[in-house]
Amino acid sequence: MLVMASVFAFAQQSLWGGQKIISPEIHPDNTVTFRFFAPKAVQVQVTGDFLPPRQVESQYGKIDVSGVADLKEGENGIWEYTTPNPLASELYNYTFIVDGLKNIIDLNNVYVSRDVASLFNIFLVKGGRGDLYSVNKVPHGSITKCWYSSPSLGYDRRMTIYTPAGYENSGKRYPVLYLLHGMGGDEEAWITLGRTIQIMDNLIAEGKAKPMIVVMPNGNVDQEAAPGESSWGLYKPQTDKLPRTMEGSMEASFPDIVKYVESNYRVIKKKSSRAIAGLSMGGYHSLHISKQYPDMFDYVGLFSAAIIANDKADSPIYQDFEGKLARQFEHAPKLYWMAIGKTDFLYKSNQEYRKLLDRHQYKYVYRESEGGHIWRNWRLYLSEFVPQLFE
Amino acid sequence: MLVMASVFAFAQQSLWGGQKIISPEIHPDNTVTFRFFAPKAVQVQVTGDFLPPRQVESQYGKIDVSGVADLKEGENGIWEYTTPNPLASELYNYTFIVDGLKNIIDLNNVYVSRDVASLFNIFLVKGGRGDLYSVNKVPHGSITKCWYSSPSLGYDRRMTIYTPAGYENSGKRYPVLYLLHGMGGDEEAWITLGRTIQIMDNLIAEGKAKPMIVVMPNGNVDQEAAPGESSWGLYKPQTDKLPRTMEGSMEASFPDIVKYVESNYRVIKKKSSRAIAGLSMGGYHSLHISKQYPDMFDYVGLFSAAIIANDKADSPIYQDFEGKLARQFEHAPKLYWMAIGKTDFLYKSNQEYRKLLDRHQYKYVYRESEGGHIWRNWRLYLSEFVPQLFE
Repeated sequence: MLVMASVFAFAQQSLWGGQKIISPEIHPDNTVTFRFFAPKAVQVQVTGDFLPPRQVESQYGKIDVSGVADLKEGENGIWEYTTPNPLASELYNYTFIVDGLKNIIDLNNVYVSRDVASLFNIFLVKGGRGDLYSVNKVPHGSITKCWYSSPSLGYDRRMTIYTPAGYENSGKRYPVLYLLHGMGGDEEAWITLGRTIQIMDNLIAEGKAKPMIVVMPNGNVDQEAAPGESSWGLYKPQTDKLPRTMEGSMEASFPDIVKYVESNYRVIKKKSSRAIAGLSMGGYHSLHISKQYPDMFDYVGLFSAAIIANDKADSPIYQDFEGKLARQFEHAPKLYWMAIGKTDFLYKSNQEYRKLLDRHQYKYVYRESEGGHIWRNWRLYLSEFVPQLFE
Repeated sequence: MLVMASVFAFAQQSLWGGQKIISPEIHPDNTVTFRFFAPKAVQVQVTGDFLPPRQVESQYGKIDVSGVADLKEGENGIWEYTTPNPLASELYNYTFIVDGLKNIIDLNNVYVSRDVASLFNIFLVKGGRGDLYSVNKVPHGSITKCWYSSPSLGYDRRMTIYTPAGYENSGKRYPVLYLLHGMGGDEEAWITLGRTIQIMDNLIAEGKAKPMIVVMPNGNVDQEAAPGESSWGLYKPQTDKLPRTMEGSMEASFPDIVKYVESNYRVIKKKSSRAIAGLSMGGYHSLHISKQYPDMFDYVGLFSAAIIANDKADSPIYQDFEGKLARQFEHAPKLYWMAIGKTDFLYKSNQEYRKLLDRHQYKYVYRESEGGHIWRNWRLYLSEFVPQLFE
């Protein structure tokens, strides 16, 4: 029963990739260096949300696109770029552009996220807001990916459920936040791009949020599950695969989700212990679900909500809009929270919705942030919304 | 409350990446085409385990390395390679090599796995063994990532737990398989590279395996959790970060894991309802854990086990090896299953261990496969081992 340890080490070594480069390197002063080994390349660039965005003209007016910075070739074919200034503490994304080839993943950084059909690297700058998105030495909740039966839709569907630290042993019942994703997202989006697990663990550990269950379903009713997790196989994610996103079926089938959660988890089955929030399309869903079932939610969060006139929407869900809203606000939610970025393309439609709420004197809280329709804002909104729940 | 739907569509479009290329394209006859857009490149190649391996000389003798195939440049800068023959049904991996730059991820395939410090794309060829690794229209189990307290090690640690379809509602108690990863792996390895969820869902649905819980802990005692999931942050995974992998601490602290599982899940707390199996380092751990606690497991699986003389191992766990093995086989496990590939670098040490078992007339089942120290074999072994459990 002998094999030379050196042979074992050698065989493992071959699995290790081999590059000894560190990238990104976050320096003590929070400047960051990116490195890429490409001895034959003529140009290597980096792009991501850590760079100031560029404004470009489009047929729809000025829009923000990610900035681009040039790396310089150094010794041994290793290209390098260091940010001129320290970065604010945040979770950032980036990819390289090598001789015009876009979306090249950093070979020295295994941490990637997917947004619809694209992958990009991520990194965390600590010392501020980024600490909230980090895994810290605090009690950790559990995350479960399970399947629930949806009789309304006719098949089983996958969802993601966060239970707070101590859930397993406490014997207690918990309030529930239902947290919905945007178009192109799925039941994975909030825990990957949204850092929900870390935000919840950290806020609860700091005593800033009540221990609660967070339920993250899939808002695309034609999908059983996220790309790669369903019987559709390992297909290329595309919008046109999802014809039914904002036409009432998600809202109509939502009680199936609540039923599963309330049958299988120790939850408090009361309006005062239920919250719903969503980003973009998920904000649209949250708006319509909360008014369709006016006795269900005492807390509503609309994050950059896609409050749009939907010409496909002949569903009964969308009919009698103002009448249903009136019924919802007869016993008004304890918190109706709207947040949007100043440069969000949905800014105007959100202001118009505010006018409607104001006209009827429906009470809500409005939060305006910098920036546009981006995950940085949705993580921010989640971390501000959650401490206000279940007071 | 209006925003033009076209603006919304446009803004979403910008998130979508944009390339209309399909890669890999799996044709009806199971040949596969890979495509890569690189108009300025001089050479584009693909490498992966779907190509016949090349044998190269090394100081340790001949070893297998992945084959490489050239793509041809076609119209519009799109390079292409089609396999000359249909591929056998399997889960495969690949990356591109662009002008010598290795490990380039396919920009049109969002499905990637990580092995230690490298990412690669995956694809599935159906119609045979690959169907077992696919998400099919069958009842699905749940997967939970939770944290358990390890008093032996002094901190909380993360693990992954599969519960079979119906667990939530059945009220029944289930048998448990403890499934351990290899060096460089973690509590994510068996569900990503090993396709454990799909294998279990499919075998149980076909009636080929008993419904059971599968517990996948982290075998690196210095880690709280997988890279990126612990307070170590988003560091670069490296072997030298893990000094304590095969020196007794995993075996000594293992009862903490069993305690958590048996306190928090509805399990049958009997030797006849407990199994342990592991690959490579996890096989080594399984061997030592099962003999250290001879009354714990009636089923033991050693997959390409790293049965090595370990000069670091002055732990009491490794002392009196033959004496402990004798006690284990006094009330011999119902199944002691060893499997290894013919070209595995651990082949010889496994044969020497067989001789030891034979010498003492300890009963075991031996399975020899083609190939070496690779995940394809470990998925195969898992799918053969599981149907033999808890008969």
